Amino acid sequence: MRELNEKGKLAKAASRRLAALSTSVKDRALLEIADALEERADYIINENKKDIEAGRKNGLKEGLIDRLMLNGDRIAGIAEGLRQIAALPDPIGEAVSRVKRPNGLKITKVRVPLGVIGIIYEARPNVTADAAGLCVKSGNAVILRGGKEAFNSNMAIVKVMQEAGYAAGLPEGSINLVEDTTRESSTALMRLNEYLDVIIPRGGAGLIRAVVENATVPAIETGTGNCHVYVDESADLDMAKNIVINAKTQRPSVCNAEEKLLVHEAAAGEFLPIILKELEDRGVEIVGDERCRALWPNAGAAEEEDWYTEYLDLKIGVKVVGSVDEAVAHINKYNSGHSEAIITNSYANAQKFLDEVDAAAVYVNASTRFTDGFEFGFGAEIGISTQKTHARGPMGLKELTSTKYIIEGNGQIR
Amino acid sequence: MRELNEKGKLAKAASRRLAALSTSVKDRALLEIADALEERADYIINENKKDIEAGRKNGLKEGLIDRLMLNGDRIAGIAEGLRQIAALPDPIGEAVSRVKRPNGLKITKVRVPLGVIGIIYEARPNVTADAAGLCVKSGNAVILRGGKEAFNSNMAIVKVMQEAGYAAGLPEGSINLVEDTTRESSTALMRLNEYLDVIIPRGGAGLIRAVVENATVPAIETGTGNCHVYVDESADLDMAKNIVINAKTQRPSVCNAEEKLLVHEAAAGEFLPIILKELEDRGVEIVGDERCRALWPNAGAAEEEDWYTEYLDLKIGVKVVGSVDEAVAHINKYNSGHSEAIITNSYANAQKFLDEVDAAAVYVNASTRFTDGFEFGFGAEIGISTQKTHARGPMGLKELTSTKYIIEGNGQIR
Repeated sequence: MRELNEKGKLAKAASRRLAALSTSVKDRALLEIADALEERADYIINENKKDIEAGRKNGLKEGLIDRLMLNGDRIAGIAEGLRQIAALPDPIGEAVSRVKRPNGLKITKVRVPLGVIGIIYEARPNVTADAAGLCVKSGNAVILRGGKEAFNSNMAIVKVMQEAGYAAGLPEGSINLVEDTTRESSTALMRLNEYLDVIIPRGGAGLIRAVVENATVPAIETGTGNCHVYVDESADLDMAKNIVINAKTQRPSVCNAEEKLLVHEAAAGEFLPIILKELEDRGVEIVGDERCRALWPNAGAAEEEDWYTEYLDLKIGVKVVGSVDEAVAHINKYNSGHSEAIITNSYANAQKFLDEVDAAAVYVNASTRFTDGFEFGFGAEIGISTQKTHARGPMGLKELTSTKYIIEGNGQIR
Repeated sequence: MRELNEKGKLAKAASRRLAALSTSVKDRALLEIADALEERADYIINENKKDIEAGRKNGLKEGLIDRLMLNGDRIAGIAEGLRQIAALPDPIGEAVSRVKRPNGLKITKVRVPLGVIGIIYEARPNVTADAAGLCVKSGNAVILRGGKEAFNSNMAIVKVMQEAGYAAGLPEGSINLVEDTTRESSTALMRLNEYLDVIIPRGGAGLIRAVVENATVPAIETGTGNCHVYVDESADLDMAKNIVINAKTQRPSVCNAEEKLLVHEAAAGEFLPIILKELEDRGVEIVGDERCRALWPNAGAAEEEDWYTEYLDLKIGVKVVGSVDEAVAHINKYNSGHSEAIITNSYANAQKFLDEVDAAAVYVNASTRFTDGFEFGFGAEIGISTQKTHARGPMGLKELTSTKYIIEGNGQIR
């Protein structure tokens, strides 16, 4: 695909220069870009209106229209995000380790950029600026491939970022947007091994699956969250109630929201009627296993498929379990490796849950909603990795880097 | 593929128990396995003889027969390798970082096993024991898929490892060998996403390409080394001579051996006749660019393809360059991201080379032959990663791990 090859080549060349760029140039460029986005907000909003109109004409759901929509406040928010990225410490150049070997070789492991990062995402124009900002700060060139619904918005944002960024000293080719928004361009980008060092999909389960299935470039799976909260026999039920309400309803459309509630049988009789009433009052649809439905007949019947499903909506699956072991086994069978919580006062059960649950983030007595780069103190994130290689959990600037060994000698041979 | 599904399921179940296994049980199992391999050396050697005979009948080259062959000394060496792995520190359970957030959440990043590791390799039965040993120590279950030429040897080694290891407390299913040695089983293993967390190919460029092209499981590319030594204008030419001879001839069949020699034009007139004579005396075939051939008419003409080729043999490609920048550009165009060296007395050129060359290991004034887990002080390695995600350079026990975040709270919600 000619566009991808050209942009790949440009990005690869830019990545060599970006890797050597000083922190102060990168930070100044990010601040200039932030200012430019605000100064040119009218232009961006006008371009965004074309996407909104097209979206309405094509029957895009209001939820998606809302994600797509840009206004002055949202652009100010995007600019603020870039300023925060500028304020973060630069991960590049850090010595991760250094040893002097018996033969006198000094071996230093140094943090370096990955090189060229491909990002495939859906109709969220804010991702365009966030992702490009994180890549610039970590010394990586980026090739963005956004959803066609946001095409005009993405073009406008990238144009402003390129103009301001390149004027401030970023190498040309640092920030690239694929203009071909067909499915073919997405697949071709996943297979652009000559130029790309990694591909990161940001989006729903379908996109992630397509990347896993088709990518030949190393990929990092992000963001599928079939998250469980398990309320143990010894839980403080008031705490459990607050956490479940928060994890399920505070923002149901995000990947760290709760999707499943497991309750120990000894707590179910008291806890389920309380919590399920609260959830129903907040408009949450409930499906449960038989023991749940015996206690709360309003609940629908959960199918096997429900236990695997990330609803991303005001819906929850509820199951009564006989022990912490049963809860752990259920979670390890059905979860997506994102965030899992136990609410308990048992030290032994807390330890067992932390040790045995296989997920990026495992909680005791807190809401799963904290799995997030800002909440973890990383300052910003490119996504939440749910795989085990390269990075796991919230991916900040450090997770957008690689390392290299530099070895200094004075003539050593083997 | 039924065999893979069954072994995948077993391995996944074993991986849960392995992750929780104490260091002392893992170490004792490794020591028991080492003893058992030595005690049953006759059995293993007899099985190995079947492979050697079949290999000879099928016209396997003597170099490959030699790699395939096991005797008492080699089995003692394999056992010694396992004892060394037992003596290494256990990476599992280490706290990589810990923060207490303003809201009181304690967030600890803990090192955990990857889970189930697939290893695809060729006809080197020693890899069977090495790889399984590294996986056991790092708490991972392993599914080995070795070359058909080593089938009987691998079966024998795995049988002894399983019997001794499981008797010593390793969960059944920790160590698995795929008995189907067709190409189909190899491809199916690369796509066994339900059970595998990572796939690591160990072998030649063809195998690596097949994995990159076909794997849907996260893969780590290892071991392709088109390594360069660049002799700068200011190099100590005696040092340069020793390093080039060592890097090219000490063990030409391995991935960290030198494949290309770049020489600054100001040094070429003096250096090339000296070094190329030395290399010729050691049986090295030389191909060069025009400027090299003008100085050393014996050299063959290097084709474009030569600059990309990892010979793994007594052959070298030689090029005269006009500057350190030209050397860096040539290396970044043709190298495989493994190991690159500059021989120089110029501080500025050394820094430039270290900063700008894109490879796992970049050397000043030392032989590329040091890129190796033992030489770096990791004690043992599963391979040398030439990609930038997850791990880069020699992969020891730590590189066979992932992390998870454990978050301890007392009721925090967002």
